[in-house]
Amino acid sequence: MSGITFEILARSQHSKARAGVIHTPHGVIETPAFVAVGTKATVKGVTVPMLKDIGLSTIIANTYHLHLQPGSEIVQRAGGLHTFMGWDKPLLTDSGGFQVFSLGAAYGRTVSKISKEDLEEDTTAASVYDPDVASQHGKLAVIDEEGVSFTSHIDGSLHRFTPERSVEIQHRLGADLFFAFDECTAAEAGHEYQREAMERTHRWAMRSLTAHRQNLDARRKQGIFGIVQGGRFEDLRRESARALAGMDFDGYGIGGSYQKVDIDTAVGWVIDELPDERPRHLLGIGEPEDLRRGIEQGVDLFDCVQPTRLARTGVVYGPNGTKLSITHAAYTEDTEPIDATCECYTCRHHTRMYIAHLFRAREMLGATLASIHNLHYLVTLVRRERERILVESESLR
Amino acid sequence: MSGITFEILARSQHSKARAGVIHTPHGVIETPAFVAVGTKATVKGVTVPMLKDIGLSTIIANTYHLHLQPGSEIVQRAGGLHTFMGWDKPLLTDSGGFQVFSLGAAYGRTVSKISKEDLEEDTTAASVYDPDVASQHGKLAVIDEEGVSFTSHIDGSLHRFTPERSVEIQHRLGADLFFAFDECTAAEAGHEYQREAMERTHRWAMRSLTAHRQNLDARRKQGIFGIVQGGRFEDLRRESARALAGMDFDGYGIGGSYQKVDIDTAVGWVIDELPDERPRHLLGIGEPEDLRRGIEQGVDLFDCVQPTRLARTGVVYGPNGTKLSITHAAYTEDTEPIDATCECYTCRHHTRMYIAHLFRAREMLGATLASIHNLHYLVTLVRRERERILVESESLR
Repeated sequence: MSGITFEILARSQHSKARAGVIHTPHGVIETPAFVAVGTKATVKGVTVPMLKDIGLSTIIANTYHLHLQPGSEIVQRAGGLHTFMGWDKPLLTDSGGFQVFSLGAAYGRTVSKISKEDLEEDTTAASVYDPDVASQHGKLAVIDEEGVSFTSHIDGSLHRFTPERSVEIQHRLGADLFFAFDECTAAEAGHEYQREAMERTHRWAMRSLTAHRQNLDARRKQGIFGIVQGGRFEDLRRESARALAGMDFDGYGIGGSYQKVDIDTAVGWVIDELPDERPRHLLGIGEPEDLRRGIEQGVDLFDCVQPTRLARTGVVYGPNGTKLSITHAAYTEDTEPIDATCECYTCRHHTRMYIAHLFRAREMLGATLASIHNLHYLVTLVRRERERILVESESLR
Repeated sequence: MSGITFEILARSQHSKARAGVIHTPHGVIETPAFVAVGTKATVKGVTVPMLKDIGLSTIIANTYHLHLQPGSEIVQRAGGLHTFMGWDKPLLTDSGGFQVFSLGAAYGRTVSKISKEDLEEDTTAASVYDPDVASQHGKLAVIDEEGVSFTSHIDGSLHRFTPERSVEIQHRLGADLFFAFDECTAAEAGHEYQREAMERTHRWAMRSLTAHRQNLDARRKQGIFGIVQGGRFEDLRRESARALAGMDFDGYGIGGSYQKVDIDTAVGWVIDELPDERPRHLLGIGEPEDLRRGIEQGVDLFDCVQPTRLARTGVVYGPNGTKLSITHAAYTEDTEPIDATCECYTCRHHTRMYIAHLFRAREMLGATLASIHNLHYLVTLVRRERERILVESESLR
């Protein structure tokens, strides 16, 4: 029935981690997997052959951004998002829920800090709440039961997303997997508001699922994931996961706001309640340590802007997971690669001193080479965790 | 003796065009060839494997820019420019003469219009003289018989190039071919000043050659080209070519300022006087029609920033050599490649509408894809001219 199926191949004996495969019309996603963020139908500065060389199987693009530019009708006329961007492997689209809310106000309260970078960019990242700056932003989004009205961050034009509209747009985009439209709250929101938002998200999830099931063609080609909310409250997180588990989604996103401490708590509660046989995507998390913890909790998919965003500022993952600022004076004459043990294109061909020079000279190739390395670092980290699960499992047979 | 040799394989029966091969320690340059500009040790936004996919055999980097950043000692400690930038095929370096003068004043007279783009960038391009803007620029360069004192466009620091110093820097950089230090005048300069500058350039050429010959190691690995000057005056151009021809350089650059009309006149005069058996490089010329004319006049090498600079503004070579501005509304839903007959990576994989989207969304991949196409266009144009010469020649045997 659904366009996608999930198969669990092995389970860790030491944690809730599992290794599996998601089958999609555009090939398989071997899980756990790190998914690259390609907000506007491009992973910033990296060509498709290089993305494949990195070992990426999957990209997540953004419904909010592509709706505003170039528009989903245009992407559809190009033959869908795969054809439009020249990526023939699995694709995901985020519902746009996070962006609509991270760019504005929820019920008249501004809930998120937004920087120019956030506006321009990817951001399935967890929202960062800072009351000191919140008041600087106007009301860009207003919620009602039916949906959300919001203004474009590009030209200020008025737009409206409802669950049905988000699904319709995502059908046009045609990614292999997409997310139900949800309300993304700030981590700091109180219990009362979190419950209100969560319950609305459940109603929107059901409406998203219904809208998807009514489109038989899309249903055959695409899978839909529901998004668990509930903030940092155990009762809400468990209730949200149970409610969505009852709706028979093809998989589940774990949304909302996180802090480091939440990976073991909020994510753990949610996964206890989700159906074992469906894949789980932890949205917007990309710190190496958080990826390892998420995998131990049973997460199958991750995405995050961090590797490419850090890269564009000249910050790269060095040996042993340290972060290096490549323009530091220490690397000016360093003829070693970023990480001598790394097998990415950048480390196979270029030195720290060359990349440092490119950043100092404001040459765009610097951001490209650093992005390649950082993406490869996270993709490889997650792939190795997967191999570890497979080996542990085999050794016990 | 020299690090390079030149072999002529065929001559056109219809013009002075010839097809040949320059042998260098890093492989061959099949001539005529279009050389990509990699000013700061990178062709802006394009990785090395993609440069090879484009069919490029050779890159020209810039002595002025690399001297200021990161410094030639640092490049030398990296193992030379090839190792520094990860390019194992033939490399050229321009002497820095053009940049020193295009960024400043000659004998107290400002000779060139400079834009921010010019300062930041490549520019072996012919200088553009505009007396209305000339006065806006301070004296950045002052000439004496020994050399030129100039200030860095990056930090205003004082520097001095002499012919010997330029050669020393270019030895450190270690390109397969490099240019003697010359004085580059504006096309509009009068006969008297052109003669004065030309005669100084000849003395500097001899000093450059002497400095090169004294370094036996460099002499074995590198070839030196002298640069013909003389502006738009036939007597000076011929005199300059004869003077340099008498100095036994490994090849000859044709420098100075051009306008369209000069390709058939100034270039023709110069080539009449240059030794047939040495390669000729027409500096900073890249308009398709000018490349064809240059080849007919017997030019072997070309370089120009234009393909990559145009690309970064969204201008690409369309079918039949037309220039398309890719963000034009006409391409918003155009599912064709830039040029359906083009075999470059960009045209094999991406549509006009996708590239237009990338430019509108200010995604850096747009500049990369457009640069790949434009470079491929000129490289292919010149390579086909070469094939035509070889075929014409064979058919007459």
